[in-house]
Parts: sequence; C-alpha cells; structure tokens
Amino acid sequence: MREVTIVGIGQIPVSEYWTRSLRHMAHDALMAAWQDSGVEEVDTLYVGNALADELSDQKQLGALVADFIGQRGIAAARVEAGDASGALALHQAYLAVASGMYDTALVVGVEQMSAALPVEVISATARFLDQEYEATMGATLNSIFALMMRRYMYEYKVPRDAFFAFPSTAHQNAVNNPNAMFRKAIKESTYKRIAMISEPLNMFDVAPICDGAAAVMLCATDKLPVLRHDGPPPVRIAASTVATDAVAVHDRQDPLFLEAAFISSQLAYRQATLNQTDIQLFELHDSSSIMAALSLEACGLAPRGEGARAAAEGLIALDGPAPISTMGGLKARGNPAGATGIYQVVEIAQQLREETGANHISGAQAGLAQSIGGTGATAVTHILTQL
Amino acid sequence: MREVTIVGIGQIPVSEYWTRSLRHMAHDALMAAWQDSGVEEVDTLYVGNALADELSDQKQLGALVADFIGQRGIAAARVEAGDASGALALHQAYLAVASGMYDTALVVGVEQMSAALPVEVISATARFLDQEYEATMGATLNSIFALMMRRYMYEYKVPRDAFFAFPSTAHQNAVNNPNAMFRKAIKESTYKRIAMISEPLNMFDVAPICDGAAAVMLCATDKLPVLRHDGPPPVRIAASTVATDAVAVHDRQDPLFLEAAFISSQLAYRQATLNQTDIQLFELHDSSSIMAALSLEACGLAPRGEGARAAAEGLIALDGPAPISTMGGLKARGNPAGATGIYQVVEIAQQLREETGANHISGAQAGLAQSIGGTGATAVTHILTQL
Repeated sequence: MREVTIVGIGQIPVSEYWTRSLRHMAHDALMAAWQDSGVEEVDTLYVGNALADELSDQKQLGALVADFIGQRGIAAARVEAGDASGALALHQAYLAVASGMYDTALVVGVEQMSAALPVEVISATARFLDQEYEATMGATLNSIFALMMRRYMYEYKVPRDAFFAFPSTAHQNAVNNPNAMFRKAIKESTYKRIAMISEPLNMFDVAPICDGAAAVMLCATDKLPVLRHDGPPPVRIAASTVATDAVAVHDRQDPLFLEAAFISSQLAYRQATLNQTDIQLFELHDSSSIMAALSLEACGLAPRGEGARAAAEGLIALDGPAPISTMGGLKARGNPAGATGIYQVVEIAQQLREETGANHISGAQAGLAQSIGGTGATAVTHILTQL
Repeated sequence: MREVTIVGIGQIPVSEYWTRSLRHMAHDALMAAWQDSGVEEVDTLYVGNALADELSDQKQLGALVADFIGQRGIAAARVEAGDASGALALHQAYLAVASGMYDTALVVGVEQMSAALPVEVISATARFLDQEYEATMGATLNSIFALMMRRYMYEYKVPRDAFFAFPSTAHQNAVNNPNAMFRKAIKESTYKRIAMISEPLNMFDVAPICDGAAAVMLCATDKLPVLRHDGPPPVRIAASTVATDAVAVHDRQDPLFLEAAFISSQLAYRQATLNQTDIQLFELHDSSSIMAALSLEACGLAPRGEGARAAAEGLIALDGPAPISTMGGLKARGNPAGATGIYQVVEIAQQLREETGANHISGAQAGLAQSIGGTGATAVTHILTQL
C-alpha cells in the first residue's frame, strides 16, 4: 500500500450563499487546494455531498464538478454518507492513490443548504436517519439528538448546563477563524435562556444550516519529489479508517455509545501506530453538544458518561490535553453537511502547517479528525501527521 | 497494485417490488453473492444507488445495508453517478481491494423505483442531467435522448426504424433470462406502431421503470488460495476504468459522440492489454436505442454514424461479432438505475462461467461491461476474463 500525502488545502468561508451555486463553491475550494499544492496533473476527483439530490436537484456531481474545474474527462465520483460524506470521499480518494492506479487526487466536500426552505433541509437531513423506523414516525436529526441527550443526562446525572463547554469552546475558537460562520464568543447566561430547538437541546447546542466547500489535494508520497519544492509543507495521512453502526439509534447495543466512532478511532490509532497521548488535537463531530460528548468518549478521551463534565473542566480547551473544535468546530465554523469532514481535515493540516495564528496548538505534530454520519451510523477517522 | 477477482455473484429478478423495501432487495442479492463465493469474512461494502434519497427517503445506505446483512461495524460507502452508480461503486471496491487495505469487498447495486409515482421517477432521474441548463428548462432524460436521436437520424441519414435491432435483440435474449423483466420477443410491426414517449423515441426504445438488486463479491487474487475450492470458477477483473464528460449535452464537443464512454473503453482496453477482437461480448448501456448506437461507436465496435445500421445487419446478435445485451440488456432485463452496472457485470461473469444456457456466447473468454450515467457524463468500463 502506497503512502499518501496531503499537498494542498483550500476552503471558502462557511456562510449562506443564496446566489452562488454548488458547482461554483466546489470550484473555488478546489482551485485553492490545487494552487496550494505543487501538483500539475489531477488524476481523479472525489466529491463528498449529502444533499444536492433534493436541495439542488443535481446528481452525478463527480462529472459536473470535474468539468467545471476544467478537468473534463478525468475519473470522478460522488460519495455519500450523510454529514460524513466529505470524510468518506477522502477515504475513497486515499484508497485510489494508495492502490497505485492514480498518483494524485482532488477531494472536495461541498454542500448548499441555505437556499432551500428550512423545512426542506429538515426533511432532507432526516434521511440520514432510518426511514422505516425513525423518520417515518416524524423524527428529525435534532429530535433524536435530544432523546439521546436526555437519556445521557438521566443515566449519568449530568445537568443540561454542563454541556455549555462545547458551544462555548467552539464559539471562542471561531473568533480567530476567518472561514467560520459565527465569529463571536457566547456567554453562559445567554446559553441558559436561549430558545429550545428540541428540549433539552437549545439553539447553541446545534450546528447551523449553512453552505460551504473545502478541498484537499492528495499525492502519492513516492511522487512528492516530482512536485515543486517551494510549496507549503506536506501533511502525511497516517490513518484513514471507516466503521459503521445501526442507522436507527434504538437498534444499537447502547444508544449512548458511538460504536462506529469507537471502532473507527481504534482502527486509526492502530494504523498510525499512535495512541491518544501522541496526538495534540482532535477535530470531532460536534454537530450537537451531545454528539460532542459522546465523540470524546468514543475516541477514548474521556470515560463513559464523563465527556460533558471533562469538557467543562478544561479537557477540550486550546491549552487542554485534548483540544477539539480548534477553529470553531461544526458548531461555530458551521456544519455544511457533506463538506464538514473536509473542513476538519483542512483545519488539522493548517494546525500542522502552523497557519492557525492565535489558535495554534503549540507542538502540534499529529491531529485526528473524525466525521460522523447522522446520529452515528457511519464514522470516518483520519490521523494526520507532519511528514 | 493487487489483482482483483470476482468470486461470487448474485441477483434478484428485475421486477416491480411494491411491497419490498430497498434494504431487503440489497440483502437478497448480497447473500446470494456471498453464498456463491468461498469467502468467510467481508472487509468492506459498497452500495451503488442513484435514487434512494428522494424515492425511499433514505441516505447512508452503506451503513444501513451493512447492518441489514449482519455486518454491522464494517467499512461501508454509498456511491452515486446516476445510472452508472453500480458500476462506479464496483470501481471503488476494486480500488479498495487493489490498495491492500481490504482483502474482500461486497458490492451491491440496488434501486427501487416502481413504488413511487412515475412523475416522481421522471423528476428524480432528470437530476442525472445538468440542473442549471437542462432540467430547469423542463428537459427529462428521455426528452434529451430524443433530441440526440433526431440529430443522429438527420446527421447520418438513418431512418427511425433502423433502431429496431436494439430492442429486438434485447427482448429476444431476455426470453431465456429468468431475471429479466420482459421475457417476450417483439415484432417489427409492433415497433412501428407503438406509442411515442418523446418523438422519435417510442416505448420500445426506452428501458422501463423497475426495481432490482445485483451483487458481486471481490477478493484479492493473492488471497484466493484461502477460499474453499469447490466454488464456481473465479472471474478476473482485467480492467476497471472511469471517465467523465460535460453533464449538459449541448456543452459537449460533439453531442453525438460519447467521449466519456470512448475514453473509458480505451483506458480499459489498455489496462487489460486486449483489443476489441479479443473480447467476445459487450454489455453496453442501452438505456435507450440511441444510447445503444452511440455506445457501440464509442467502444470502437462500429464506425461513427453506423451503429444502428451495423446492429440491423447482425453485429450485435448472439452469434454476431459483437454481441450486446446478451441477457436482455437495460431494455429487456430492465434498468433499475443504480443496480444496472452490477447486473451487467454479473451477466458477463455468468457468460464466462457458462451459466447462461441457450444464450451462451461460445468461446467467451473475455467480456466488457460499460455503464453510463444519464446521457453520458460518467462512463465506467470493466473487462472481465477467465482466470
């Protein structure tokens, strides 16, 4: 298996682009990643996208985007697994380069949600759930998160306000990220009185509906000498792993344990031959505060039932032992579903390349990004290290 | 790059399954493929599907199907490129095994279309087109095929009835295929008077709305000795290639040349180090009669503008020099969009394993399957040979 390296990164600010189409957003992120790399020729393209089918009336995004970036003819594919689509597309691109069939690969995660009516977005993202057992009963993504959170509060005797650390950290870190949607710190007093989305989940507990695109250029490590030498430092993909779980939460062995996230992170630690203490930052899937807590636990960063409390005690701060959402996370940078997984990886590359300014994690030599589809059915973990 | 082999195949009859859900159909095809193989452990799963988002309200099909076949936990992905989804999923599975990360992979193409209203299916498949330049004007898949066909008739002075050879051959061959939807030969007199779908395309020129699932089990060739030895003969994947073109037909260099199909087939001949005359059968993408003619030309089996005439003169018959649709093709076996590409590959494997009864192509040692997304934006070509 060939080693694979990230040689270029690109992103557009997460925002609401009501007048900008999907292909334009993908183009801008991809061209930034391409320019950032020393690569001349692109061999294949992967597009991670969750919602274009219903929200943009568009399929075959692989071919569409390949053409729009001037690469008509190259191999291209669209990959989907809810809001893990971007990360899963990266895994496929990683395999494509590792196989030896392609030397370079562009990957873009792209999503346009804000041009549709919110009710359409809610219906569309409910398709990340199990249609026959969850969505058909009227459940939405946030309503299931709310059930999980209430069970967590009951089971582990955690008060609702203990979850404040997640949005608080995310918003604080987003202040210094020019690509984040919400660049404003939040106060605990506001958190305590802001409107509920689906009790006990409030507006600060969930990621916003938004648009975005982020991209990376991959290159086989044995082809690096061919690239120009004045580019930014390449970043090594030390692990790329995928695991799955039941789509319906009630069908899982334990509704409060993200089994797929656990398996995928264990496989990643093993592939990278690193353990948690060798890794300086963790971009986890904080699509809601409860998912952030469960992700910490699944990745072995906090004991079962202790995720929220540990976060409140400083675990996840920029200077803590396991910083998460270092550029704002899904909560404050924004969670443009199929694009999110690539934003996470781009941000870790920025940390390793020391391009994160005041948010830089000092001594960062390895970072873990974990993206989760919906309530936990698909989990994709990448570990990046300095080359 | 590791060699990859097909060690198991499975399919359910193409039909209208109004009371059977997507996951059940995928399960049945996958279990058949698994049982057919000598494989004990499945390392990863790929699901090719085009329309579940809107027609079944379901995403994250990778995780959903993995769980439903009792393989909760394994890596899984859903791949989409219109009606080339199944074949593109196979390409990704091929890369996954070739890379060395996974030793075995299950691939299923699955689609449920008939439970939705026809108007919903027409809208959904219009998403295979370019939304901003084609679908938004009211174009549908068949209306664009009709424009291409009329241009072809004008440009190359081909009468409409010359296309009869395509549905005629497909229906004739489907008679002996227990998995085909239409097992009845058609008469030229009927073809001449049957209702138009979108002039000059009539009901016999287009594939039906239908449901189906087909699956294959892949295994790294270097792991074959581990398998049980009494199974059916394995089939080698000698080539697996992908190419793309503009999604909008008016944007292509020549609207009557399937550039992606051409590039993909040329890459496949090169990868397999075979040329057309070394290959005894060709499962092409006859989603409409005009696509069948253009596919023949793109694959180098007929000169430009001669596809329909050559077909009428016996080129594509079971005993002709380039048999196509040997088990009924998209037209008569049926075209369950995201499943089609796997049906084609399963049928070629059946031919190479001599399981096709009266339709067996004598001396078949190599077969080519080509799947196309929509009107030609994505093309995936596989060449299979006896091991």
